[in-house]
Amino acid sequence: MEKVAVLGAGSWGTALALVLNDNGHDVWLWTHLESHAKEMNETHHNKAYLNNVEIPEAMTVTSDLAEAVKDTTALVFVLPTKAIRPVCQQVKNVLDHKVTIIHGTKGIEPETFKRVSEMMEEELTHNYFDEIVVLSGPSHAEEVSIKQPTTVSASSFSETSATHAQHLFMNDRFRVYTNKDVVGVELGGSLKNIIALGAGISDGLGYGDNAKAALVTRGLAEIARLGTAMGADPLTFIGLTGIGDLIVTSTSQHSRNWRAGNLLAKGGSLDSILQEMGMVVEGVRTAKAAYHLAKEKGIDMPITSGIYHILFEGADPQAMVDQLMTRQKRPETDEIHEMLKAYYLKQEN
Amino acid sequence: MEKVAVLGAGSWGTALALVLNDNGHDVWLWTHLESHAKEMNETHHNKAYLNNVEIPEAMTVTSDLAEAVKDTTALVFVLPTKAIRPVCQQVKNVLDHKVTIIHGTKGIEPETFKRVSEMMEEELTHNYFDEIVVLSGPSHAEEVSIKQPTTVSASSFSETSATHAQHLFMNDRFRVYTNKDVVGVELGGSLKNIIALGAGISDGLGYGDNAKAALVTRGLAEIARLGTAMGADPLTFIGLTGIGDLIVTSTSQHSRNWRAGNLLAKGGSLDSILQEMGMVVEGVRTAKAAYHLAKEKGIDMPITSGIYHILFEGADPQAMVDQLMTRQKRPETDEIHEMLKAYYLKQEN
Repeated sequence: MEKVAVLGAGSWGTALALVLNDNGHDVWLWTHLESHAKEMNETHHNKAYLNNVEIPEAMTVTSDLAEAVKDTTALVFVLPTKAIRPVCQQVKNVLDHKVTIIHGTKGIEPETFKRVSEMMEEELTHNYFDEIVVLSGPSHAEEVSIKQPTTVSASSFSETSATHAQHLFMNDRFRVYTNKDVVGVELGGSLKNIIALGAGISDGLGYGDNAKAALVTRGLAEIARLGTAMGADPLTFIGLTGIGDLIVTSTSQHSRNWRAGNLLAKGGSLDSILQEMGMVVEGVRTAKAAYHLAKEKGIDMPITSGIYHILFEGADPQAMVDQLMTRQKRPETDEIHEMLKAYYLKQEN
Repeated sequence: MEKVAVLGAGSWGTALALVLNDNGHDVWLWTHLESHAKEMNETHHNKAYLNNVEIPEAMTVTSDLAEAVKDTTALVFVLPTKAIRPVCQQVKNVLDHKVTIIHGTKGIEPETFKRVSEMMEEELTHNYFDEIVVLSGPSHAEEVSIKQPTTVSASSFSETSATHAQHLFMNDRFRVYTNKDVVGVELGGSLKNIIALGAGISDGLGYGDNAKAALVTRGLAEIARLGTAMGADPLTFIGLTGIGDLIVTSTSQHSRNWRAGNLLAKGGSLDSILQEMGMVVEGVRTAKAAYHLAKEKGIDMPITSGIYHILFEGADPQAMVDQLMTRQKRPETDEIHEMLKAYYLKQEN
């Protein structure tokens, strides 16, 4: 049994804490809101984020960060992207021993284009951990919390750290595979939220499965293009943390990115939708980051551009989707071929 | 305006006939059953297969093959795999001029492992056409029939033939892209039905989106492996006719392969399910072909094997899926890397 702190009591943080608890660990779930910790301890439910399951007695919920991280072997950050830097700064002030650092946050910093593990490294510095582990894959929190079979990747430049994360989380219903392509895993997990927004828009417009499948397929190609330009292994995008996660997020109404897109297509304004949902929709910030990044790197991302225009420039969703559908297209695989061929030939030399 | 005959009045044949009719062509829809032709002509509905839309007055439904193919510029075969050879033999007896041959059938011949276009070439011989065109992609007939946006590939070794098919079918709601990888397009379209059966089994067992996404992702990797060994371009499997079609078939209840898997998981016997559905479930025959082919070629296809055992050897679906979930797995992308790397290096040399 190890003491593990999960930082962030949203739906995914809570679900991961439940997995760790199932595996017999001493789990401390931290939330920055004292009232939220109090409510969870009293009611044994996380009403706002994951109300369907009971928070077990054995799990401690706290808003005291120093107490949460004390004597832990691992810290699991599951926070909105914009909370990563401030919470890392707080952790740095109270952490006094070496731990495994794991995160389950899918996003990119819009201003710097940095991945979550890059932001964390900058804030935490390397005193108290080896290499950060990214936990990612097709995994709705609601299903994990009721022990539906789920597979994820634990990706790190350090095999020791990845294996420690695997050891903590792995069980019969929650399978964890180690993986070395940190860049691809983080980018796939983040960028897929843009395509999930698009899938929600397509569904919200009343389009069917045929249209959505085309959008997801073309969307995968364009996020792989951007990811590869940023140093990812292109094949990561057709694995669990790429297409696997994209399928789950694009075809399920559990997904908040899908839901935001769906409401946008039905005529809601971005501000009112985000306010009504009351949850962070990472795809919105990620779309902004990816749009500017693609421009900077000269990469063609028609779906991401279309979604950016809908989100931030008031473009009409119907008109944007119709434009995408009727766009003159190059032969489907030529560009991906070039990308992959270049990647393998570079590896060979 | 061209005269085009669509051979096969199932749901997909009827939907394609409607697209051709929308594009102003003189469409003759052929069915081998005189009673079916009579009913469609009298009721203007295809009650058994696609009842939601009206068969327009302009379209002729007939069971007279000679009359149907007379003076046509193109024949579109949309038949169950097992009807391909006999109907080709009949066509050969009545066809007396050069046409473009198109097919929209997704299957493999279990006994010979031959693709549909290979079977057609053997039966028709090359007197009256250039190269066969395969029409494939994420396309539920029900959605196409009500003009939901859809994208497909027209794949042929002959660019002229592919372009003719594109010209016949293309419109604002039904986009057709040409493609040269006939082997990959036919194998992707066929083999994905096996994974769709698996997705139906997973859903039928009450498993969630996380489990299904893992199954589809791993399934894609194994059908790409078999396809590449048979001469396909591995990238075709991540395009519209691969992952695109797989998403549609695995996540929608329109799909008869998904439905058959779903019923199997709930305890039905294969025979009773096929009888009750009254439609051809291509994935069943394809699973048999792929299972034996993979054995012959020494290719590891754990999902296909599991489904074969459920279909033909009475294995328990729950036990098979649990076994797949807990199977010791090699690193996720290593094997795909090897396959792609070999492919590109071979192309380079």
